[in-house]
Amino acid sequence: MTSGPAISRRRLLAGGLAAGAGLAVGGLGGYGFAREGQPVDPQSGVEPFYGVHQAGIATAAQERIQFAAFDVLTARRDELQALLRSWTSAAVLMTGGQPVGNPAGDPNAPPSDTGEALGLGPARLTLTFGFGPSLFGSSGPDPFGLGPLRPAALADLPQFAHDELDPAISGGDLCVQACAEDPQVAFHAIRELARIGRGTVAVRWSQLGFGRTSSTTAAQATPRNLQGFLDGTNNVHGDDQPTMDASVWVAASDDPPWMAGGTYLVSRRIRMRIEAWDRASLADQQATIGRTKLSGAPLTGTAEHDTVDLTKVGSDGKPVIPLGAHIRLAAPATNGGIRLLRRGYSFTDGIDSQTGQLDGGLFFVCFQRDPRTGFVPVQTRLAGSDALNEYIVHVGGGLFAIPPGIAAGGYIGETLFG
Amino acid sequence: MTSGPAISRRRLLAGGLAAGAGLAVGGLGGYGFAREGQPVDPQSGVEPFYGVHQAGIATAAQERIQFAAFDVLTARRDELQALLRSWTSAAVLMTGGQPVGNPAGDPNAPPSDTGEALGLGPARLTLTFGFGPSLFGSSGPDPFGLGPLRPAALADLPQFAHDELDPAISGGDLCVQACAEDPQVAFHAIRELARIGRGTVAVRWSQLGFGRTSSTTAAQATPRNLQGFLDGTNNVHGDDQPTMDASVWVAASDDPPWMAGGTYLVSRRIRMRIEAWDRASLADQQATIGRTKLSGAPLTGTAEHDTVDLTKVGSDGKPVIPLGAHIRLAAPATNGGIRLLRRGYSFTDGIDSQTGQLDGGLFFVCFQRDPRTGFVPVQTRLAGSDALNEYIVHVGGGLFAIPPGIAAGGYIGETLFG
Repeated sequence: MTSGPAISRRRLLAGGLAAGAGLAVGGLGGYGFAREGQPVDPQSGVEPFYGVHQAGIATAAQERIQFAAFDVLTARRDELQALLRSWTSAAVLMTGGQPVGNPAGDPNAPPSDTGEALGLGPARLTLTFGFGPSLFGSSGPDPFGLGPLRPAALADLPQFAHDELDPAISGGDLCVQACAEDPQVAFHAIRELARIGRGTVAVRWSQLGFGRTSSTTAAQATPRNLQGFLDGTNNVHGDDQPTMDASVWVAASDDPPWMAGGTYLVSRRIRMRIEAWDRASLADQQATIGRTKLSGAPLTGTAEHDTVDLTKVGSDGKPVIPLGAHIRLAAPATNGGIRLLRRGYSFTDGIDSQTGQLDGGLFFVCFQRDPRTGFVPVQTRLAGSDALNEYIVHVGGGLFAIPPGIAAGGYIGETLFG
Repeated sequence: MTSGPAISRRRLLAGGLAAGAGLAVGGLGGYGFAREGQPVDPQSGVEPFYGVHQAGIATAAQERIQFAAFDVLTARRDELQALLRSWTSAAVLMTGGQPVGNPAGDPNAPPSDTGEALGLGPARLTLTFGFGPSLFGSSGPDPFGLGPLRPAALADLPQFAHDELDPAISGGDLCVQACAEDPQVAFHAIRELARIGRGTVAVRWSQLGFGRTSSTTAAQATPRNLQGFLDGTNNVHGDDQPTMDASVWVAASDDPPWMAGGTYLVSRRIRMRIEAWDRASLADQQATIGRTKLSGAPLTGTAEHDTVDLTKVGSDGKPVIPLGAHIRLAAPATNGGIRLLRRGYSFTDGIDSQTGQLDGGLFFVCFQRDPRTGFVPVQTRLAGSDALNEYIVHVGGGLFAIPPGIAAGGYIGETLFG
């Protein structure tokens, strides 16, 4: 843990940011700026943008997320490609902790950076881009001629039992997942991308997540979700290369070739019936999940990482982990070995004016090599029998193909358009 | 800056939290727990709950807020008092980083702590409690007989020009402001208070703020709001005792006596028309605010803290700081020396389904000795002439009397009920 001197915003601003566009951008490179009293390690503060895979998947999960889905407004393929090139340039700058342009250039033009993240540093920002089925003409015309390139794995999700998806917070032609240690940095990134895309795309829905509920490396402690349980104990870890290759990354031998090195993202806005949950007894809560609340141990063990024994029977002759327990139905052992990399976040959006109850829960995000053998069968099983269904409802979400990573000089999704 | 070893959640949970209620609570005292990789200084991690004034006002502004307004459901004074006593006990525990009860007690009862903040530490949590005009019977019956004790300073706010307040996110009998460095700690605190109050109170509205837009000590750098400007450069600082006494704290000689040492809170949910703002030129933005965007300097100066010269005239014969500039209309010099302690936060709640535009802006909170000479005249002036009105709209908010601080053994608001 490095505790270098915090470079204050005041020094940053005195340091020539206003001196001109080139200087402004150049002058910020390589530093991890932070709010006073919160030094960010300049090294760990930057996540590489370029790579074989996009960042924000295997990356150690950051604390905050701002997710957005966009509708494409243009019918011109060259305009869409130009946008993806512009977004790439902006993403390179922002993930490096730099503004997307001189925020104090021509006074007669709008500032080229909106400014609210100046001085906050890169904060481990990652930006992960994806393409929804509708971009390939799944639900109407196919102006870009992408239909033939649509991956079979990007099949529309079925309607699951109990789904109450609101179209206003579901779907989208494009998605961007912005994760960072500072929510204002994540917010700024989505806002800039929306601003840059004005006229070409429009934000369809967005979601702020205030606290991560998943660890994506073995070194991160398992966080708690809003039900107060450790979540994602058996998550896939980004640094577990064999599992990532088997379950998350699209292989070069998979179809279509343009997705090699990519993956598929499923997000679900899962509202928790928090008031009902809080009235449930500890025993009920633990039977619903299949784990002990405090330690996170499976009901068949004593420590969080103890093996989940789905066969163990209690003195009453019943399975110790009940038949409807969430971890039984979600376990790889009951799903043909399927493993998902989860990257969820807690959210709250105030009070539901219809019911007077808290509108909060889990913004679930997962990545997998093929949703048809990943999220779909697991969620089909969960939607049918999960004891947790008494306490949750899926109200929104989306499915997106995440193209492979970008090489220097390339742009987001170029394997699709190239 | 201390960089002590992070105490992992796993160690915490292994350390006897499950051993029983007494141990569980006792075992957490005095430590600043943090998520892996984010050590919290055990010293700075705790803000004292007891004091002459409530915490969360003069306290150095934390990064996150969860604010809630409650409706009182009971008509019995003893039940209301009992709730305030229960809230006091819970607030003492939570601000100390402790659960409100053993989260693993009787398995046949609901857990006495919902659990999602276990292991996150105190995170500088403060809880600030207030009473709205309606608690004193301003808008109906007065079941608690508090009408005669209503402070004159708690007069209902007037309808300001351009106000578009939604009753569903305005008002309330009680309020709680939870501020912390970790949003999950702030969220947990409000959720526990709502749970403890079930049947006696119900949450009327709540608001998450993801990034502070005010500094409340001279040592904190001025943060940027979602318009990208430094906000609150001339804010009142909590450690500036003469100004706090003159402008923020209710004096012993003020009426009514039960408010001595208290203050008054005004909150406004100010939605920003972000898309329109982002299309405005830099010159327009700077003329609207009256400051330079990058440096935060007044248009009559070169550095953020330069004096705002409202009299300076440019070569064109016009005031350098325009007549409608926000800082001119809000300046103490044009408001009879009035100063407010601001404690605002940026928020975003996704996309407005009516307009397709971003629903985000500033959750404005301010504290003052008397709103009739504080927020009301300043906001009257701003609502009438502020150039910023083109880019913002007030859509919700509330007014609350913040009773004085609590001594050990006392309870929130006891000077009112005692």
